[in-house]
Formats: sequence, structure tokens, C-alpha cells
Amino acid sequence: MAARVADLLKRHRVTHGAKFRLADCDPDDDGGAHLKTQADDLLAQTVEQIRALQEMLYAEDLWALLLIFQAMDAAGKDSAIKHVLSCVNPHGVSVHSFKVPSPEELDHDYLWRTTCRLPERGKIGIFSRSYYEEVLVVRVHPEILKSQRLAPELVTKRIWQERYEDIRNFERYLCRNGTLVRKFYLNMSEEEQRKQLLERIDEPEKNWKFSARDLEERALWKTYRRVYEDAIRETARPDAPWYVVPADKKWYARLIIAGAILETLESLNLRYPTPDPTLRREMAQARRRLLADRRGRHSRR
Amino acid sequence: MAARVADLLKRHRVTHGAKFRLADCDPDDDGGAHLKTQADDLLAQTVEQIRALQEMLYAEDLWALLLIFQAMDAAGKDSAIKHVLSCVNPHGVSVHSFKVPSPEELDHDYLWRTTCRLPERGKIGIFSRSYYEEVLVVRVHPEILKSQRLAPELVTKRIWQERYEDIRNFERYLCRNGTLVRKFYLNMSEEEQRKQLLERIDEPEKNWKFSARDLEERALWKTYRRVYEDAIRETARPDAPWYVVPADKKWYARLIIAGAILETLESLNLRYPTPDPTLRREMAQARRRLLADRRGRHSRR
Repeated sequence: MAARVADLLKRHRVTHGAKFRLADCDPDDDGGAHLKTQADDLLAQTVEQIRALQEMLYAEDLWALLLIFQAMDAAGKDSAIKHVLSCVNPHGVSVHSFKVPSPEELDHDYLWRTTCRLPERGKIGIFSRSYYEEVLVVRVHPEILKSQRLAPELVTKRIWQERYEDIRNFERYLCRNGTLVRKFYLNMSEEEQRKQLLERIDEPEKNWKFSARDLEERALWKTYRRVYEDAIRETARPDAPWYVVPADKKWYARLIIAGAILETLESLNLRYPTPDPTLRREMAQARRRLLADRRGRHSRR
Repeated sequence: MAARVADLLKRHRVTHGAKFRLADCDPDDDGGAHLKTQADDLLAQTVEQIRALQEMLYAEDLWALLLIFQAMDAAGKDSAIKHVLSCVNPHGVSVHSFKVPSPEELDHDYLWRTTCRLPERGKIGIFSRSYYEEVLVVRVHPEILKSQRLAPELVTKRIWQERYEDIRNFERYLCRNGTLVRKFYLNMSEEEQRKQLLERIDEPEKNWKFSARDLEERALWKTYRRVYEDAIRETARPDAPWYVVPADKKWYARLIIAGAILETLESLNLRYPTPDPTLRREMAQARRRLLADRRGRHSRR
């Protein structure tokens, strides 16, 4: 990976949540020093490296990669996913957007619906929103908790601490079993959201994205900031880090996300499986037969 | 529940694994004092109480019950499930027998396939074998671990401790979210297994159950005892107890299993949901309309 990108990642990676403060993170950070002029090249380069390593991830079939995207509305989650991962062989990638849970999903524990959609070995799974909603929107709107059909004695003061703990344990378990978890919070400013939501209203092609609810949630901006900060503090660990990605400049956000994915893939020392002696022997034999097989060549004539 | 059954359960319930020793458990225990003469009545009574409470479990739709059955071959898991739960409304029960994992299942972490089949709220889910196989048969046969496509650096000396820890955490999480977990080890003697396997060979109607592999596993009896003991020691907790069920006498095993299920259902203080004022008003209105509606009565004539 380009040294410049690797260097920037350090600023945004949170591996030990305890001291994390969202106020220290500038949504308008752009890497400084005229990075923008090289950004397109760096992104293209990074994306190409991801593409190549993903082929190896698939061939080796040992590891899975789970990428979780969380953000306020209109922060650019979906377009970032599109720009960074479109070039990857779709065979090796799956994206799930989690919306309001269905009745069937509500009839299960809150990790159930996302667990059923975890990526297989060899694949990159992308969650646009995830089980983190359970400590974000559900925490901001306690009435949602009531709709989750939990017996009253289970809803104690400790419920959020329990959820953080269960999520930490769950992610450690995944890591122990070959699924690497990387989490992205797209950190957008309130002013930038205002602009983005206005665009959704003013540009006919974006109208379909608009929902009046977005404004209701926007009114709770400060509360959301607090619960995002808590979630990151409580669940950022070396084996499941958060990347707090400045999101006011989309080009910068994409570069950081691509860099983080590449950094993760590179950490795996991926390689194409080397054939064992039996396979080598079988291949040598098959090669001889194919070279000697004249039927195929004749019928081409 | 009958006091006599409640009393017996205490002998067989393990809620704190640390001091548990399988050698202290007699597979031939039959409750003593001529219990057998009343056993049929007690079982019928217990099963009827389970049936009634399950209707409430379903109506209340707050809790799920996960019953895990583990045992050596021919210990009577499936027939116990049949005898104890056949009378329950099938709407509210699901049974899954977990066999050798499929390629798709092996491409996921080891808790994935069972998680996808967890019971919904209001239901009783039964696992005949389960994720415990991951610390039982897989521990006895390390070559299975190799087939699980784990990267070599994940297979450390700590792997079994990690699996116990992850299973404990997973079960605590389920409990926190409304799924009660109860685990049954059907504790059969080596001599009783010999008899049961002979029956499978000698009785034509049981031949289909026979597999030559059963004898290979039987040869590893002592190793299996050791890993079962470890698994129970490491994962018996107040929120997810094991019942070590003496299984040489099938009638006794069934009574204990039924008692344990009933004890769990009773602990929930289940009740039919009481209608809120709106529903009451709607029902009163509907009642008046139905009584006044003469059309239906005319058309019956």
C-alpha cells in the first residue's frame, strides 16, 4: 500500500476505545498537503490492489472479511461501498443493507438476522448498518426497545453495557474463527448533512432517497453523536477496530476506506494455495493427456 | 410439578460446573424407593403440564426455550424427545438433528449453522446434537478440526478454552435476550450401550439405525467421557445449566427430562396476555355486532 495512505490510516483507526473522543475527530479532515491532487491515482491504485488480493482471499478460502458501515443519514455509506468495491469480483462480495427488522427477525435475538448473513470463508461481506443499530437508534429511541418483545425483567439499567459486552464477545469469537471484523463510522458534520439532504430534495434523481424521517433524526444530532461515541469507545478493540472516517470530503472518505480494507487484506499474508504432491502428479498426468489428445484438435478443423 | 420429581431434579442439575465429576453420576440411577411403579403416571402428568404451559409460552410470545441433547450413540436422545414432546402443539416446537456439517456450513464459523436454526420467541427449539460437538467429537478427532478450514495461526493450544469461553458467552447472550438454554447429557453406561447396539443389529426394525462407525466411536469411550466431563464443567452455569440424566433406564431418563422442561417453563411465570383497554373495547363492540348479526343465522337454515 502507498506509504502516504498507510500513514493516514493511523489517524483514523481506533483499536483501544477507552480514550476515544469524537470531538477530537474533524469531519472535514482531508489529509492535508495537497493530497487531493493525487487522490484519484491513490484510490485507483488501492482499489486495484484490493481486487487482486480478494482473488487470493477467495482461492485460499480460509478467511472472511466483515466490513460494517455505520453513519448518520446521507453520509455516503452506499456510494462509498460502490466506489471502493465495485471492481471486485462480485462472486466474492455480498452487501446487505439492514432496515427496520421484520416480524420474523424481531422474534429472534438481535444478533440473529445479521449472523444469518455473515460472509463465508473466502468472501467479503458488507453490512450497511448492522447489529450496531441495537446500541445506536434503539438507544436513542427507547420505544424501539419496547417493540423488541423482551420480557420486562430483561430490560434493566445494565442493558446497554450488556449489549456492548455481548457485541465485543461476538466479534472476538468471529475473529478467533477466521472472520475479520472492521467497522467504519462515516463521520460527517451537521452542516454537511444539511447540504446533502437539500440535494436529495433539489435533485430529481435523488428524490427517491428522501424521507421526512431523516429530518426527525437530524433533530437528535447531539444524542446520536453521544451514542456513536459510546459505541466506538466500548467496542473498538485490536481484533475489531473502528475506523472513524472523515466524511465531509467524499474523495477522502473513499481513500481511507479503501486503505483500511487493503491494510486488512495485507495483514493476512494471503497466497494462492500451493498444490500438494498428489495434485502436482495429477496435473502432470492430465497435462500429458491433454497434449496428446488429438481428437479435440481435429474436430476444431 | 409433583414434589417427588422436583426433588429428583436437584440431583441431576449442574449449575456450577467447577466441581462436577462424571464419576459421581450413576447411569443406572432410578430415583430409588419404588419410583418405577408411579413413573408412568408422573410422566403423563408432567407432559400434560408441559403441554398446557407451552400454549401460554406461544401466546405470550416473549420467551424461547432451547433444549440441547447430547449423548453417546444409542443413548435414546431421539426416543426421549419423541416421548416427552410429542403431545405438544407442533406449531410451537421445532427439532433439528445436526449431522456432519455441509460444505456451506463449514464455510462459516462453527456457531453459524445452529444459530440460523434457533427457536423464535414463543417456541421450543430442540437440538439433537449441537455446537457442543465442536468440543466433543472434534476434540476426540483432531483431524476434523483440520477439515474446518481454520488458518493454522488460529489453531493454538488455547483453542478448547476459547471455544468453552465463546460458548459460555453465547449462551449468556441468548439468556439476556429471552432464549433460555437447557442442556441434557444422557449418561449411559458402556454395558447399556453394548445392549442397545446389539438390539440395532438383531431387531430388523432397528437395522436402519446401525452404523459401523458406532463401534469405532465406542472404542473411544474413555476419551469421550473425559471430553463430556470437561464440556459440562466448563459450560454449566446458573443461566445455562446441564442436566446429567441417568440413561440406562429409559423411563427414568424421560421423567427427568420432562421434569426439567417443566421446571424451566414454570420458572417463567407464564400467563396469557391480558387484553389492554383498547382491545377490551374492540372485543365488546365486536361481541355486540356478532350477537345482533342475524344474517349468519338465517343462512344456516
